[in-house]
Amino acid sequence: MAEQPEGSVLFGVFDETSDHESRVALTPDIVTRLRKAGVTCLIESGAGNKAFYTDADYEAAGAKVTTAQQIIEQANAIGFVDRPSAELVKKLKAGTWVIGMLGSFTDEAYVDELKQQGLTAVAIERLPRQLSAAQSMDEMTSQNSVMGYKAVLEAANAYGSFLPMMTTAAGTIRPAKMLILGAGIAGLQAIGTAKRLGAVVTAYDVRPASKDEVESLGAKFLDLGLDFSKGQGEGGYARALTPEEQAAQQAAVDEKAAGFDIIITTAKVPGRKPPVLLTKQGVDGLHRGAVIIDCAASELGGNVEGSAPGTQVTEGGVTVIGAPYLASEVSTTASNLLSRNVADILTHFIKDGVLTIDPSDEIDQAMVVAGTKE
Amino acid sequence: MAEQPEGSVLFGVFDETSDHESRVALTPDIVTRLRKAGVTCLIESGAGNKAFYTDADYEAAGAKVTTAQQIIEQANAIGFVDRPSAELVKKLKAGTWVIGMLGSFTDEAYVDELKQQGLTAVAIERLPRQLSAAQSMDEMTSQNSVMGYKAVLEAANAYGSFLPMMTTAAGTIRPAKMLILGAGIAGLQAIGTAKRLGAVVTAYDVRPASKDEVESLGAKFLDLGLDFSKGQGEGGYARALTPEEQAAQQAAVDEKAAGFDIIITTAKVPGRKPPVLLTKQGVDGLHRGAVIIDCAASELGGNVEGSAPGTQVTEGGVTVIGAPYLASEVSTTASNLLSRNVADILTHFIKDGVLTIDPSDEIDQAMVVAGTKE
Repeated sequence: MAEQPEGSVLFGVFDETSDHESRVALTPDIVTRLRKAGVTCLIESGAGNKAFYTDADYEAAGAKVTTAQQIIEQANAIGFVDRPSAELVKKLKAGTWVIGMLGSFTDEAYVDELKQQGLTAVAIERLPRQLSAAQSMDEMTSQNSVMGYKAVLEAANAYGSFLPMMTTAAGTIRPAKMLILGAGIAGLQAIGTAKRLGAVVTAYDVRPASKDEVESLGAKFLDLGLDFSKGQGEGGYARALTPEEQAAQQAAVDEKAAGFDIIITTAKVPGRKPPVLLTKQGVDGLHRGAVIIDCAASELGGNVEGSAPGTQVTEGGVTVIGAPYLASEVSTTASNLLSRNVADILTHFIKDGVLTIDPSDEIDQAMVVAGTKE
Repeated sequence: MAEQPEGSVLFGVFDETSDHESRVALTPDIVTRLRKAGVTCLIESGAGNKAFYTDADYEAAGAKVTTAQQIIEQANAIGFVDRPSAELVKKLKAGTWVIGMLGSFTDEAYVDELKQQGLTAVAIERLPRQLSAAQSMDEMTSQNSVMGYKAVLEAANAYGSFLPMMTTAAGTIRPAKMLILGAGIAGLQAIGTAKRLGAVVTAYDVRPASKDEVESLGAKFLDLGLDFSKGQGEGGYARALTPEEQAAQQAAVDEKAAGFDIIITTAKVPGRKPPVLLTKQGVDGLHRGAVIIDCAASELGGNVEGSAPGTQVTEGGVTVIGAPYLASEVSTTASNLLSRNVADILTHFIKDGVLTIDPSDEIDQAMVVAGTKE
């Protein structure tokens, strides 16, 4: 394929790094890739620092390193790890495209702001993930995969014993028994990583299909003796259970949990209060030295009753780690994957060098939440 | 074997936990084991807390939980993770046996104190490790093994990318390239753990025998094109190199290091300044985002020039973690193994229910550094 001329689309990325955020929505390899697709990249100075990419790396790849103000003024499209703040939205020019995790399922007021500002908004959370054309745009998969990997490393690092079985002259160390609650992308990646490290892994998910997936990775499926058929929700997320179902599930999980050394919970429901999978009673049933990683911990609560971002040790000696930022902590890999996802969404919308909505396209229909669907 | 009557030997263990030390020289399972050998255990209250063993756990196993003062007054033998402080030595009764890492190769003045106090001192660092009867007493092996495992977890946790290769819809992530400098027990365990996690592992050691050991674990041996034959020192430790050899080794390692993402250095020489394996130039040659774990970091220096206990990030974006306490951080497993090692040393010296030195025994000859070798 011949290299296309530069510059028909100006794509901007801001520095979103903060205490909790180390990712960047554009990495240097993707700058090069986008140039070949006729896109010129603008990046705010310092945006890649926490992912170990310098301004010089971006310049070498062909990006223009600049200020936030210049990006606001010049960019045709802007890509985000998260989404623009309300203040930034107010500064953006009408007609600018915004690509990010917009929270459109739960935050209608925010989407209204985008519309009022005259922006074209592409909501990554609405990606029709089941389409094969959408696979390389699937940020939820890429980031949850990183999260699952990192959750196991955090658990292994916090746990006072070995994960693998070890036979030594001073005796045999039994392998750690790990329970993964929530066997979506993150859970499956956690299973794979835990098995790599030699743990004995059991997993559970409300979706009936997950039993086969769990077992195909060599883990045991936790049988709670409960039936929540039709467990799959919109967009591939787990659906919210009814209060009765949740109570039954909690009681069963609490009881089964006691035999495990490490528990990782991954049942995030974006923008909503996460389901409680393990109650205080379940936590108190664990042995001294057990470790819990709650990937869903947030200001709205987590999968573990009483968990919060950060580390707590219960009176019974159980370490509960609320870890909402795990993907961000693997900043380089997470950024590389996310950057590719965002870039592929961007280029999907470029036809003949122009950002265009195709109302007949399934991806466009699903993802464009503000802007003219001509 | 019939259970022997309790109480002929009183074995005491103090609470040695501190900011840096989470291990305990006696775990509940070993209390039970020692009872069967006719040993009654005394343990200072709280000694096992950081290894997740409570006073109640020790009592349930048959130990007497008591005060340091009671142990000083009553115990016939005392076991240590480390060694008694100079102040504690002054309080111990003549005739008491002390088992610990006494630093006898480098600290003659300390050994003199033990002698003057009339103690019988068993130096674990002098264990004749090559004897098969000594295998289960080998604390250096057990603790360095834990250190090697933990070093890889620390590295993986600090590194901004994945260790394993990962093929996703958003592209392929190459596996991390890890270099292990020092392929003793710790290095070999690090190789095994890194390979479990999917890293591509290369290792180096001055001992010529280590090439086969490294390769047998599926790692590559780093060829520096240098010959340090007779690299094996006393007690299985690496010997100290001559200044010329060190300089040549450093230059070669510095040059080769640049291609790696993670470097773990494990060349501790107990009680002495560790050899510098990687100079500042070597560190500066690493790419932004690279991670170094220096297991030999200490107040005397480390294997990496300029490293110190704790985490530093260089101007070039290399994270250097000086990690002298890794075994202690895996507190339960490390204590379980160490406790078994110490208990097996103790029972080796018990003949007919009495602590006895056998001057004809190779282990006794090697390890007893103070006390009558009758």
